[in-house]
Amino acid sequence: MILSVANKYEIQIGTISQANFDWLSSKNYAGWVLFADENTAELCLPRIEEFLPEDTPVIVVPEGELNKNLETCQDMWEDLFAAGVGRRWCAICLGGGVLEDMAGFVSSTYKRGIDFLQIPTTLLSMVDSSVGGKLGIDFNQVKNSIGVFNDPIAVWIDPVFLETLPLREIRSGYGEIIKHGLIADRDQWDKIKTITDLSTVDWETIIPSSVNIKREIVLEDPFEKGLRKALNFGHTIGHAIESYWLETDLRLFHGEAVAAGMIMESWLSTQLEALSSDELREITDYCLSMYGHQSIPEDSLPELLALMQQDKKNEDHRVNFTLLSAAGKARINATAEEELIVEAIRYYNGLAHA
Amino acid sequence: MILSVANKYEIQIGTISQANFDWLSSKNYAGWVLFADENTAELCLPRIEEFLPEDTPVIVVPEGELNKNLETCQDMWEDLFAAGVGRRWCAICLGGGVLEDMAGFVSSTYKRGIDFLQIPTTLLSMVDSSVGGKLGIDFNQVKNSIGVFNDPIAVWIDPVFLETLPLREIRSGYGEIIKHGLIADRDQWDKIKTITDLSTVDWETIIPSSVNIKREIVLEDPFEKGLRKALNFGHTIGHAIESYWLETDLRLFHGEAVAAGMIMESWLSTQLEALSSDELREITDYCLSMYGHQSIPEDSLPELLALMQQDKKNEDHRVNFTLLSAAGKARINATAEEELIVEAIRYYNGLAHA
Repeated sequence: MILSVANKYEIQIGTISQANFDWLSSKNYAGWVLFADENTAELCLPRIEEFLPEDTPVIVVPEGELNKNLETCQDMWEDLFAAGVGRRWCAICLGGGVLEDMAGFVSSTYKRGIDFLQIPTTLLSMVDSSVGGKLGIDFNQVKNSIGVFNDPIAVWIDPVFLETLPLREIRSGYGEIIKHGLIADRDQWDKIKTITDLSTVDWETIIPSSVNIKREIVLEDPFEKGLRKALNFGHTIGHAIESYWLETDLRLFHGEAVAAGMIMESWLSTQLEALSSDELREITDYCLSMYGHQSIPEDSLPELLALMQQDKKNEDHRVNFTLLSAAGKARINATAEEELIVEAIRYYNGLAHA
Repeated sequence: MILSVANKYEIQIGTISQANFDWLSSKNYAGWVLFADENTAELCLPRIEEFLPEDTPVIVVPEGELNKNLETCQDMWEDLFAAGVGRRWCAICLGGGVLEDMAGFVSSTYKRGIDFLQIPTTLLSMVDSSVGGKLGIDFNQVKNSIGVFNDPIAVWIDPVFLETLPLREIRSGYGEIIKHGLIADRDQWDKIKTITDLSTVDWETIIPSSVNIKREIVLEDPFEKGLRKALNFGHTIGHAIESYWLETDLRLFHGEAVAAGMIMESWLSTQLEALSSDELREITDYCLSMYGHQSIPEDSLPELLALMQQDKKNEDHRVNFTLLSAAGKARINATAEEELIVEAIRYYNGLAHA
């Protein structure tokens, strides 16, 4: 399956084969360089190694969000120089969202930009970060606060890499698939909510429709001036929870935080938009059944609210939300008072023993 | 005088007035932030301060090429955060090439890019760096090696700022004006070579024609795939000399290094291209009359050649030159053997007592 993004580049979903690298060869780059993280270098690189020239420089970076920073970028830029990479080279970025955001940013700024290709290896990066051109790193304790918008020359999504992932990681990425259905495609949501076992999902079918929803939104609004904010559903509260938990021992995955965020923001949608209480119940039940429940301590509320205030999408110091007017229909640029946000969190906490 | 760049933005050459800031106000930014360096904050900011709201955050960075690095960028990003600058703000960049390259890069990457406006304050930045979208910083001992291509929302060139500059700085920028004539406009070169006193030049006439030459070249080839390399005339050897002298006590300005580079690359042009010996003599005499002579020590040759090898524009380890087939006509992608480059340097050294 091939999805074209505004005739600028193509997203291929299916097995990566010699044909892919024949196409890359036909572009006549002066050389290829490969970025991977510690995990993908070990688990994913062997699956494509046979297609690469033996002297391809491989730059391996430490994995994880905590390393998505300027220090790692400096190492990567230095490694590119050391490998003699020139402006007519192409970087192949093999990894999850962290690696792809960072390697894409490093490529886009090295010698004012070299071409790069993305091979996402996690479900999250397949359906989310590999579409849309958002690249960057964390800075000043703010996620993705330094970066650029730039497109890869191609995205190759091969579900075979999902076999390398622990189930919890798959479940995390699945949160974005739920979100795509809820904000833009009622039919997709109706299909998704029947899924109960992530180990038996037919990814070759689910991924293309999810990627396509994101693709259509991004094409309408590449620089997040309006519609693209729809993708923020579940993320205003979700990001705050994710950041807050980063500082604690208990690690919360992105999709887990977003699932909780979607429940709370669905509750807000019943208060501020036309989402029905039946729909709220359906969303709440499904997210709880897939992600369980993680109570939010009362004493974390001030910090959570402060984190929401810092979001890039805010204007004039009001917290910006994307809410639902129905399942399958988003409404951007909603705002909520602090009291109501606190009520939403308490609604979620009240589900603990539901 | 207004020059439009591909309908994307306009370059105004003339007095900056309230009308400029009325136009900026009409764009409805959430706020303005101003970048300046230590010198422009003191000498140039007072000329536009009356047009800025009193609470405009002003971010002052240390001046000079040695500060055009990632550490300064980090300070600038942190200052933007501290000032509460959001994505819908506009940055006003008031300074020479170093400040403009760096503040443009910082703006283009802060929260994945905010709009920025350039007010160049040196002759060099007026005719060179403010057109063409090249932004960036020095990294790993290589000039401009990290950066992006991105356009400002407007460029306001006000020759009044030239009054704040020492003559040597003006003469440095004037090197690019000579270059623009030599690579693309015989008439402009014929006009320029009659200029002997830089303190009496009518900048309001000279700057627009020079900016226009660069503008036309950049429009044809925004990402330096071909034609734009014409702008590299004098710079292959010039940059190497400039980098080499950076490490010595004797400071050589960019235009001074480029003037010497143009003499040497004109000599190469008589060997490898159709440039006549009369034209070589004319170029040599004019550059020497304006810039004097600075002998290049024989023992610096190995390092100079190594520096030329590192240039971003090289492919396949051969040193890439832009040469002249005639005064007013450039030929890109020429290459020269090391022996010939050494001969060119010796030609220049032989002019010491000419």
